[in-house]
Amino acid sequence: MDAPRYDDLRALLVNCSLTPDADRSHTGRLLDVVDHLMTGAGVQVDRLHAVEHEIAPGVQPDMRGQGWERDAWPDLWPRVAAADILVIGTPLWLGEESSVCRRVVERLYAMSGELNEAGQSIFYGKVGGAVITGNEDGVKHTSMSLLFALQHLGLMIPPQADVGWLGMIGPGPSYGDPQEGETPVGFDHAFTRRNATIMSWNLMHTAAMLRRAGGLPTYGNDRDALQQGELFGYADPDPVRTQE
Amino acid sequence: MDAPRYDDLRALLVNCSLTPDADRSHTGRLLDVVDHLMTGAGVQVDRLHAVEHEIAPGVQPDMRGQGWERDAWPDLWPRVAAADILVIGTPLWLGEESSVCRRVVERLYAMSGELNEAGQSIFYGKVGGAVITGNEDGVKHTSMSLLFALQHLGLMIPPQADVGWLGMIGPGPSYGDPQEGETPVGFDHAFTRRNATIMSWNLMHTAAMLRRAGGLPTYGNDRDALQQGELFGYADPDPVRTQE
Amino acid sequence: MDAPRYDDLRALLVNCSLTPDADRSHTGRLLDVVDHLMTGAGVQVDRLHAVEHEIAPGVQPDMRGQGWERDAWPDLWPRVAAADILVIGTPLWLGEESSVCRRVVERLYAMSGELNEAGQSIFYGKVGGAVITGNEDGVKHTSMSLLFALQHLGLMIPPQADVGWLGMIGPGPSYGDPQEGETPVGFDHAFTRRNATIMSWNLMHTAAMLRRAGGLPTYGNDRDALQQGELFGYADPDPVRTQE
Amino acid sequence: MDAPRYDDLRALLVNCSLTPDADRSHTGRLLDVVDHLMTGAGVQVDRLHAVEHEIAPGVQPDMRGQGWERDAWPDLWPRVAAADILVIGTPLWLGEESSVCRRVVERLYAMSGELNEAGQSIFYGKVGGAVITGNEDGVKHTSMSLLFALQHLGLMIPPQADVGWLGMIGPGPSYGDPQEGETPVGFDHAFTRRNATIMSWNLMHTAAMLRRAGGLPTYGNDRDALQQGELFGYADPDPVRTQE
Repeated sequence: MDAPRYDDLRALLVNCSLTPDADRSHTGRLLDVVDHLMTGAGVQVDRLHAVEHEIAPGVQPDMRGQGWERDAWPDLWPRVAAADILVIGTPLWLGEESSVCRRVVERLYAMSGELNEAGQSIFYGKVGGAVITGNEDGVKHTSMSLLFALQHLGLMIPPQADVGWLGMIGPGPSYGDPQEGETPVGFDHAFTRRNATIMSWNLMHTAAMLRRAGGLPTYGNDRDALQQGELFGYADPDPVRTQE
Repeated sequence: MDAPRYDDLRALLVNCSLTPDADRSHTGRLLDVVDHLMTGAGVQVDRLHAVEHEIAPGVQPDMRGQGWERDAWPDLWPRVAAADILVIGTPLWLGEESSVCRRVVERLYAMSGELNEAGQSIFYGKVGGAVITGNEDGVKHTSMSLLFALQHLGLMIPPQADVGWLGMIGPGPSYGDPQEGETPVGFDHAFTRRNATIMSWNLMHTAAMLRRAGGLPTYGNDRDALQQGELFGYADPDPVRTQE
Repeated sequence: MDAPRYDDLRALLVNCSLTPDADRSHTGRLLDVVDHLMTGAGVQVDRLHAVEHEIAPGVQPDMRGQGWERDAWPDLWPRVAAADILVIGTPLWLGEESSVCRRVVERLYAMSGELNEAGQSIFYGKVGGAVITGNEDGVKHTSMSLLFALQHLGLMIPPQADVGWLGMIGPGPSYGDPQEGETPVGFDHAFTRRNATIMSWNLMHTAAMLRRAGGLPTYGNDRDALQQGELFGYADPDPVRTQE
Repeated sequence: MDAPRYDDLRALLVNCSLTPDADRSHTGRLLDVVDHLMTGAGVQVDRLHAVEHEIAPGVQPDMRGQGWERDAWPDLWPRVAAADILVIGTPLWLGEESSVCRRVVERLYAMSGELNEAGQSIFYGKVGGAVITGNEDGVKHTSMSLLFALQHLGLMIPPQADVGWLGMIGPGPSYGDPQEGETPVGFDHAFTRRNATIMSWNLMHTAAMLRRAGGLPTYGNDRDALQQGELFGYADPDPVRTQE
């Protein structure tokens, strides 16, 4: 099979590790796999190590003047806006995504009032996925939360759009940890390899499909029209039949 | 705007209410909204009231002879297989989807070994959404679980592919309950109306886009090829850099 | 250290496996560990393999005459009512508890209108825990749901009241599977051993503490009094201060 | 009924609002209800508005010298350590707890290696609860996560240890918002009033019960002993019976 080329696509891979040094992030290593696959297909890949940036708490597009002096988000947003593919990577703590990850999701949510020229959510036309690493448990739980958030904002979620690595339950080594005389932890794990591959290609296939179709038709999702009372065929159902 | 026509699409709306009488199901009434919108666009809509069918517990395609005498699933599966659009509807109890809903998800999962002719999961080419009603809390939690399950199986999730109705926290009336001298509960709720409309159209738009593109390209997600060791460009990353 | 004796306590361990044969349930084997620890301390342990019983869907104490001919729940409830310790065991499918487990939780919830003689929820005076097995992911997610449900109903949750076993992410063997020439899968896993031990003892310690204290004082939680308007000291707070 | 007095107890109420001004926090207003009930019973109540403090990302007790210059956590920890009752309050964004809340949970988790004099987790002897406000959905989801985390760390969870307020699904006013000529939003909501009352008293009753019993017996949960191989009665179960 010939690999498709996707030279016109751009991807943003956001690492929500708690670790300030990107080279020491386990999640960063699994994101490298996605980066390599996408770069190899011609996609222009941007990487963001979120904890390096002072992203203010809040749910406004710009939190400066809302009680915070500094806010990196307004400078980061154009990188999100430019991406056809948005991948959120997070480590797991107590079975949940990191606080840095929630901060990023909050600020993505802060943009949910923005519309594109067709009156759709500004996130329409993008596709989203999730990359999760931990040493014991929580990939599915965190994927549920992240993929939900992304589709809620307006991204399309391709089939099998998440990948993770976990060791056995309980403390243990993490993805990418070096092992004396052996391949680093997790690199030989067929399940993670396969899912990273499927996810990366499905994100690219779907972003390209959406791009080539000119985005999703606006009928039914044009928020300006909905705001003005357009029903797009909506009608009330019959009420629930009560007990005789 | 002219409404698009989607006469070549088929949808299956599964109601996972605990109520044996479909006419008394609150979730069923919100599914009626989706039904009306899709039928109006030419989609052939099939309805399944799951609790009417004796779906056996288990994660095999057919549980007869696995400890169970009867199993309705093998007869129901062709209706799932025929659908381009699969919508799961569920009520909420203690903030979670119903036991009937989990049973349906388990049996969908039981089919995850099946592949289409291109070696992809049998669910590729379908799109999925969720419809949830309760009287107080849990739409997002349940959407997280359902949309995750659907994308994991191989369905594509369009933007904003869920809709729900909730009253205020605490006991209260449910969606579609008749009210003396007033419109039934929830019917005048702009948020639920709007989201039902967006979701229904996005499911149709996305299913049509996928259908017209001939499905998702198989590069990277052909499980037969992956099984035979094809890497589709995958390469191990560098290991995590350890503390100096 | 001398092991405490808890001869006056009763425990009910509910296995929500999908497998009709209790001897083949992986979750059942981890429940055996809890059973052994509690039995050894003098606790009278009752075991319930839920899928063997025809528990009707619904949220009423008795679903017969509510659309269902048969309902095992009214016969099972006295076993719950008799227990000081209630442990819910479930396998994982797609990262979630089983449909059998959700059915059990729904029917526990169906009893939430029942009060004890002091006007408290009928579940007051009981303690609850969760036992979860899967082959890859989801123990914490499922514990979240189960322990939440139990505390919501009125059970007390001791510290570290859950235990699980998971292998590495992806398909793999399950807890208790025999291995040629080796100890069965998971039995040598220190984390699961330790947590099963802590959980079992904490359930017993807490149940005994609660029993010896004569249950939780009724001040503030007497639902009859609350219903009659007793405030127990409640007062409205000040409103939110709005933007100047 | 005479209200019990709990003059020897201390509570810490942590508000994980994103709002820097504590007086403008909706979650803060519902925490005021808990504060009032506990203060009225003699409990010494400490309040922490987490976002005012520069709590560094990470899972070590002190992140200074781990890549961060400043870290407020080491100064905040003694306030947690002093509390018999720990209540986490959070707003909801996209159905999840706030990023500030996750940061607090991460740093609580960072202390999970600490033991008390009896070899138990440092959190033993404390009780925990959750207070959640949003304008539409997510109280139960967030309670699941928070109460799970607290019990996992070693806190005891009393019956019905959470309270929340939500309006109807979709955008709307928040708890405590002033309303012209009416009581502020949510203050007249019987469900939230009742649950705040039950939760507050149950936290006090349980903390007192635990304190008066001298904490939980150490048998089975002494991590020093477990580390040294003490089994406390643990024994391997029989393996799963395989298919004949």
